[in-house]
Amino acid sequence: MTWVPDTAGSGFAIDHLPMGVVVPAGDNRPRCAVRIGDFALDLDAAEAAELILAAGSLREPNLDTFLAMGPAHWSAVRSGITELLTEESKRSVVEPLLIPLADVTTRLAWTVADYVDFYSSEHHASNVGQIFRPGQPALPPNWKHLPIGYHGRAGTVVVSDTPVVRPSGQRAAGDFGPCRRLDIEAEVGFVVGVGSSMGESVPWQRFSEHVFGVVLLNDWSARDIQAWEYQPLGPFLGKSFATSVSAWITPLAALESAWTAAPVQDPAVLPYLADDRRALGLEISVEWNGFEVSRPPFASMYWTPAQQLAHLTVNGASLRTGDLFASGTVSGPARAEVGSFLELSWNGSEPVELGDQKRSFLDDGDTVTIRARAGSIEIAPVSGKILPAQS
Amino acid sequence: MTWVPDTAGSGFAIDHLPMGVVVPAGDNRPRCAVRIGDFALDLDAAEAAELILAAGSLREPNLDTFLAMGPAHWSAVRSGITELLTEESKRSVVEPLLIPLADVTTRLAWTVADYVDFYSSEHHASNVGQIFRPGQPALPPNWKHLPIGYHGRAGTVVVSDTPVVRPSGQRAAGDFGPCRRLDIEAEVGFVVGVGSSMGESVPWQRFSEHVFGVVLLNDWSARDIQAWEYQPLGPFLGKSFATSVSAWITPLAALESAWTAAPVQDPAVLPYLADDRRALGLEISVEWNGFEVSRPPFASMYWTPAQQLAHLTVNGASLRTGDLFASGTVSGPARAEVGSFLELSWNGSEPVELGDQKRSFLDDGDTVTIRARAGSIEIAPVSGKILPAQS
Repeated sequence: MTWVPDTAGSGFAIDHLPMGVVVPAGDNRPRCAVRIGDFALDLDAAEAAELILAAGSLREPNLDTFLAMGPAHWSAVRSGITELLTEESKRSVVEPLLIPLADVTTRLAWTVADYVDFYSSEHHASNVGQIFRPGQPALPPNWKHLPIGYHGRAGTVVVSDTPVVRPSGQRAAGDFGPCRRLDIEAEVGFVVGVGSSMGESVPWQRFSEHVFGVVLLNDWSARDIQAWEYQPLGPFLGKSFATSVSAWITPLAALESAWTAAPVQDPAVLPYLADDRRALGLEISVEWNGFEVSRPPFASMYWTPAQQLAHLTVNGASLRTGDLFASGTVSGPARAEVGSFLELSWNGSEPVELGDQKRSFLDDGDTVTIRARAGSIEIAPVSGKILPAQS
Repeated sequence: MTWVPDTAGSGFAIDHLPMGVVVPAGDNRPRCAVRIGDFALDLDAAEAAELILAAGSLREPNLDTFLAMGPAHWSAVRSGITELLTEESKRSVVEPLLIPLADVTTRLAWTVADYVDFYSSEHHASNVGQIFRPGQPALPPNWKHLPIGYHGRAGTVVVSDTPVVRPSGQRAAGDFGPCRRLDIEAEVGFVVGVGSSMGESVPWQRFSEHVFGVVLLNDWSARDIQAWEYQPLGPFLGKSFATSVSAWITPLAALESAWTAAPVQDPAVLPYLADDRRALGLEISVEWNGFEVSRPPFASMYWTPAQQLAHLTVNGASLRTGDLFASGTVSGPARAEVGSFLELSWNGSEPVELGDQKRSFLDDGDTVTIRARAGSIEIAPVSGKILPAQS
């Protein structure tokens, strides 16, 4: 039990301890922190006061150094933090280092190295196929043989609550202007701590030796720009204007009881992809201007995060500290379980009721918040508000 | 005139001064350097000795800080280096800081932030279309309306002379093994020094305010892996195993007389892409195991680097120091001017003579070197040797 008040049932109790970076009000120095209830514990100050030993990794302006140090270090720091927040004898020295969340702003917690986005929900891929290629097979021929992925823009990954300016671009030949079909993609992102060498593959069994933790991710998508540009080399400007992630990274260590069975794969996959079918049982929800419009079940993903990691590196591509890979849009089998508005409104043909409005895509001023829970753990939400296009 | 001997006609005379990072033999500390003839001038030592004033930017282990400081700084440092290497009065103090290139190894000169690869040669795109989609229009419908591009893997960009391990991967459904159709793509890369803000576009007119210089780039490509994976989200593992770049970055300042006329565009492009049609007149050559097999003309590219920059940012995507964007395979109209072996061998149907061998794609042990010249300037070559796949 922690001595911090009012944490039980908050989703951010002592069993969670997600890591992030905060700037206290009236200050301007970013510092590493851990979230407990509605407080941020200043880990920079805790390490400076030698309340915790972390080889200086918590005295940096972001989590990069901490992430690079690997599982034994992550575990030791987690134990140290747990001790500070549970032992009554520590309370008098630790309590002054707790800052109410209302008094901090959050920053992107780490430097995103490479960002890879997968396409691993069968329901999503099948919906997209039916919408865009009616009369053809819903899934591309390679879809069940490999987890399709592509590289996104690392430099425009932003922390939750960063406003998103509506992008402008080519919507068709000779047609330039603000995106008219601005969408979300509700996804789960995985943050790599420990890198690997070029020429070396990382098998799925080593997932937890490389991956530190989990964030929610909104892969904002400009559908009109994307549709015109994406053949033959994939999405580019339709995605690169912004990708939002949670302010707090939930360590895999907090999710040990959240693993459940992933769907059986048929046809059988190649040996390097033949994993133990463990899925993370995150129950996601999507809120559009405060209305819950969907509940995507993450455990329904056809390809698991461990398979994604194995595939990403099977050609010898190296990992670096800070690499981020995301699941792709999470959609379950039901309409009320899809992770994009493209699917929710069936490409605009079946608008959604938001109170007294009917809507298909994002208007200026809209806010979307993606949340997720696994048992007592709440993954920190990812939220963003749409600002008008620049003139 | 420089007092450094034997530089005239070398391609690396006093009018060039490309920047890089070297590690002297017997040392292990990377240091910023400039190339003159067959020497590296140790800029770290020069700044330490106050022979040049650069606000500490040359005392870093790579060029990142220097790049971020922008055009006025780049110009001042270039003037300072020119003075050191031309004034006879400086010779006695500067000459000890010249290290023969044979006595250094080169490192990747900067940290690649995001890597974007374009597809801007009409001849290349048309050849690829004819090879893979016979009977259909050679160019996709969007091709003449926007410079098609996608994000590549920044973490596997390596410096010239780094060996490249043949990648393994899925070559078709259920078929896993070493790539059988390993190829090159001869390209020109542009290194961004000055970043921009999210939500802000960078018009083509501001090209030289953001871009520091030019490298040659080999976008190694596993054609069998790529062909199976790339629908619908573009190239991924077929490209992500390695991308090689020159060890020395040629500043735009050295290429002022190399600009020439770019092809006229028809149909007319949208206003944000309507540039002044300036192309860099680089004459590229491709050497395969020492045999020159092609001479791609860079000035023939349909989309210019300034248009690529404008397109990349028109949706508000920000630039960061270290961003790298590449031209796409450079192919001229003739078979002897193409920038990939896919085109050179017409997908293996017309093998190429290399001495007494006939070849279509890369064998283990092969070396490819891409060179380029513009008048008296030689862009530093990019070279790589193929190692066997890991077992």
